[in-house]
Amino acid sequence: MGKNKEQGFVQHITPRNEDFSQWYTDVILQADLVDYAPVRGCMVIKPYGYGIWELIQQEMDARFKATGHKNVYFPMLIPESLLLKEAEHVEGFAPEVAWVTQGGTEKLQERLAIRPTSETLFCSMYSKWVQSWRDLPMKYNQWCSVMRWEKSTRPFLRTSEFLWQEGHTIHATAEEAQEETLQMLEVYREFAENVLCIPVFVGRKSDKEKFAGARATYSMEAMMQDGKALQAGTSHNFGTNFAEAYNIQYLAKDGQLTFVHETSWGTSTRMIGAIIMTHGDERGLRLPPKLAPIQVVVLPIAAHKPGVLEKAQELAQALRDAGLRVELDDRDTVSAGWKFNEWELKGVPVRLELGPRDIENGQVTFVRRDTLEKGQLPMEGIGQQVKDMLEEVGRTLYSQAKAFRDQHTYVAHDMQELTQGVQTGFVKAAWCGERACEDHIKETTNATSRNMPFDQSDCPSPVCVCCGKPAKYTMYFAKAY
Amino acid sequence: MGKNKEQGFVQHITPRNEDFSQWYTDVILQADLVDYAPVRGCMVIKPYGYGIWELIQQEMDARFKATGHKNVYFPMLIPESLLLKEAEHVEGFAPEVAWVTQGGTEKLQERLAIRPTSETLFCSMYSKWVQSWRDLPMKYNQWCSVMRWEKSTRPFLRTSEFLWQEGHTIHATAEEAQEETLQMLEVYREFAENVLCIPVFVGRKSDKEKFAGARATYSMEAMMQDGKALQAGTSHNFGTNFAEAYNIQYLAKDGQLTFVHETSWGTSTRMIGAIIMTHGDERGLRLPPKLAPIQVVVLPIAAHKPGVLEKAQELAQALRDAGLRVELDDRDTVSAGWKFNEWELKGVPVRLELGPRDIENGQVTFVRRDTLEKGQLPMEGIGQQVKDMLEEVGRTLYSQAKAFRDQHTYVAHDMQELTQGVQTGFVKAAWCGERACEDHIKETTNATSRNMPFDQSDCPSPVCVCCGKPAKYTMYFAKAY
Repeated sequence: MGKNKEQGFVQHITPRNEDFSQWYTDVILQADLVDYAPVRGCMVIKPYGYGIWELIQQEMDARFKATGHKNVYFPMLIPESLLLKEAEHVEGFAPEVAWVTQGGTEKLQERLAIRPTSETLFCSMYSKWVQSWRDLPMKYNQWCSVMRWEKSTRPFLRTSEFLWQEGHTIHATAEEAQEETLQMLEVYREFAENVLCIPVFVGRKSDKEKFAGARATYSMEAMMQDGKALQAGTSHNFGTNFAEAYNIQYLAKDGQLTFVHETSWGTSTRMIGAIIMTHGDERGLRLPPKLAPIQVVVLPIAAHKPGVLEKAQELAQALRDAGLRVELDDRDTVSAGWKFNEWELKGVPVRLELGPRDIENGQVTFVRRDTLEKGQLPMEGIGQQVKDMLEEVGRTLYSQAKAFRDQHTYVAHDMQELTQGVQTGFVKAAWCGERACEDHIKETTNATSRNMPFDQSDCPSPVCVCCGKPAKYTMYFAKAY
Repeated sequence: MGKNKEQGFVQHITPRNEDFSQWYTDVILQADLVDYAPVRGCMVIKPYGYGIWELIQQEMDARFKATGHKNVYFPMLIPESLLLKEAEHVEGFAPEVAWVTQGGTEKLQERLAIRPTSETLFCSMYSKWVQSWRDLPMKYNQWCSVMRWEKSTRPFLRTSEFLWQEGHTIHATAEEAQEETLQMLEVYREFAENVLCIPVFVGRKSDKEKFAGARATYSMEAMMQDGKALQAGTSHNFGTNFAEAYNIQYLAKDGQLTFVHETSWGTSTRMIGAIIMTHGDERGLRLPPKLAPIQVVVLPIAAHKPGVLEKAQELAQALRDAGLRVELDDRDTVSAGWKFNEWELKGVPVRLELGPRDIENGQVTFVRRDTLEKGQLPMEGIGQQVKDMLEEVGRTLYSQAKAFRDQHTYVAHDMQELTQGVQTGFVKAAWCGERACEDHIKETTNATSRNMPFDQSDCPSPVCVCCGKPAKYTMYFAKAY
């Protein structure tokens, strides 16, 4: 940094290797994604941050609908008695629930929880809605906010209130429910890799780490640039666990009353944190092109010279006509260098500069945010060229993130290697399946089990990395957000 | 009803003229828009109802963005001390606030309100964000849910929790704020008339009926089929009222610290109630084509005959390719008559039937939901023909609603005429501007002042309809939801 004075604008971003956590805070505040709210542990999502969320919603929602899901809206309050029906679930969530005890001037007879998640409400309605096998499956999703009373919070990563989507489905058979659970995990993986440009490990959680009330939880785990894991989405198979607690039965083809099999799956604004910590650099954000509120910024250079501003406007319009999200920055109150820094900080994937010489040569100067490569493009067919370049930026972001993750994913054969590995990345190790070993690893290394890959064939060792007893699973361990 | 046994499906919709309120409840439940939630005064919005809301959001959001607004997300909780800063606002909302008093195991030092509306939070952040005239205007909107602890509730019309959008803007001058206030009122009016197909009266509220803390409130008022008014959207000019309470000042061009001028404006899921009560009939819903989750339903007739189902699938695909939202109902478990009734109940604007004779003649049979007109259309160019027909359905719904409203809007010169008029519709009358007269009218007729048209030139009388003193305003009075 600081090689030329124009970079003064971003000089107070803390370098990543000096203090990754402070770097994160600097970036989210300076790029104007969020601000702290005057409510403990809550954030205000500002237009630039919310713009990313809107694009995430569009991309995901299209995938949910394409797989046969419909959106609904359920109340944000849950009566305490309803929340208490499934024992494991209560135990998991009760410590972090915000309680409404007064409505207007009336003290409530029963406390109401602000939803930490909505399984209990969906169960309550499903038990009313489902009668026969003809009604199944029911595949619903909602976009809403949830509240979990967290002690220590960080914008996008862990806040008391956050925005998310929660899918809840019920099925006639165990097979269908498992198929749904894995299908949605696959939807998440494809979205993460193709839209977020983030490689993820998908697999099953240990019993210790699974969702409260689930028979099995699957997750996708992304690696941040400090080597820590971020759980970016989960998909749960409840079996008949909630159905039994909430009495969700249907009349099967054979005339028997039968419990439904249920799933749920969720992702949240946390994914924005993942984008920042996977792709960001010393200059600030680097946004995946499909989620960038501004995909291309057009900067007229020497805009006072005749014709420059007009040509820049034409260029911006040509790009918009090609379906791109474009900003024309024609401010005359700040220098070009200031603008370069600001749009780099905001992670705009492609910057186009247009000055008198470019116009003369029928070209435009580009700078890619991913590689900082600079060059010229002919004006002719500029829309398609920039579209192709955005595709390329997305692929590069993914490749860079994958290379980083692969370099920081280690195999451990003993606790020393594991302890060493989780300092800077993920560790793949053999595990006996016992919770005692997970607890021991957590206590001694601060790492947790992340998930077990579906392909269990290349287990690093026949014995558990921790206790030395026979190994049952291949497991990824890492420190995590 | 009940003329043939196929109509058995909808036989338990109460006729409108027998019990309008029960008719409404029958329609929303049978058309599967909502269900009652196991939380007092809350509703579950089911896929078909939520589908309408998604389309409302798309249409409105495009209009907000086209007028320079950006979306944000603010927390759902408001500390009590923050809520208390503007006296009128507190007084208006405190009686209907739900309070969070406990977070996890911790009893909170300060109560937190679930937002009944977010002026106070926006003010708090604006006071931090705005520095100089260069930062103005700030024009933000959020889509979220709000909570108002209501004593008696009805789905879509009045529920403890409801979904809405709330725009909040700050401006340098009083003129700009007023321009914004009226611009958003106009956006609402245009949306109501062109998308909801509902004619509205726009105008200013009386001081008694304005928003708590506003200098002026403008509304759009729609007439339901029972002659009652439904306030379908409001736009408020706060002047510097909140700016003074929350200290939102900017450094003006002249170097002086100056209070900003602020507006807010909102619409909600209430609009779905307005659609139902404006357009519905004895058969159920009649949905405005732009908001119908299913715009066209295709019914194969005698689908067991060779080629029928294939042709119906081709037809559905041709309509989808034309950009329409289409359902192919190829169920063989219910009769054609059952299907007719079900899709009429659900208000699908156009039904297309395709049987062997239609195929032979290269045509398709249509039934319009607005007029129940039946006829044939040539298969050739079916996409464009159905699009044109949907436009026509929208225009007809609007015309019918406008004719009804005009027939039920009366002029009153005295209290007898007013009392008579508000039994079945709106009353336009001269008003002195005094609250005492509004109170008297409310007590004696149960009608409230709705709004004052911008064109005040055709006042029905030189004296107030209530007290006989000189009239100042032309005012609409009506019973209201």
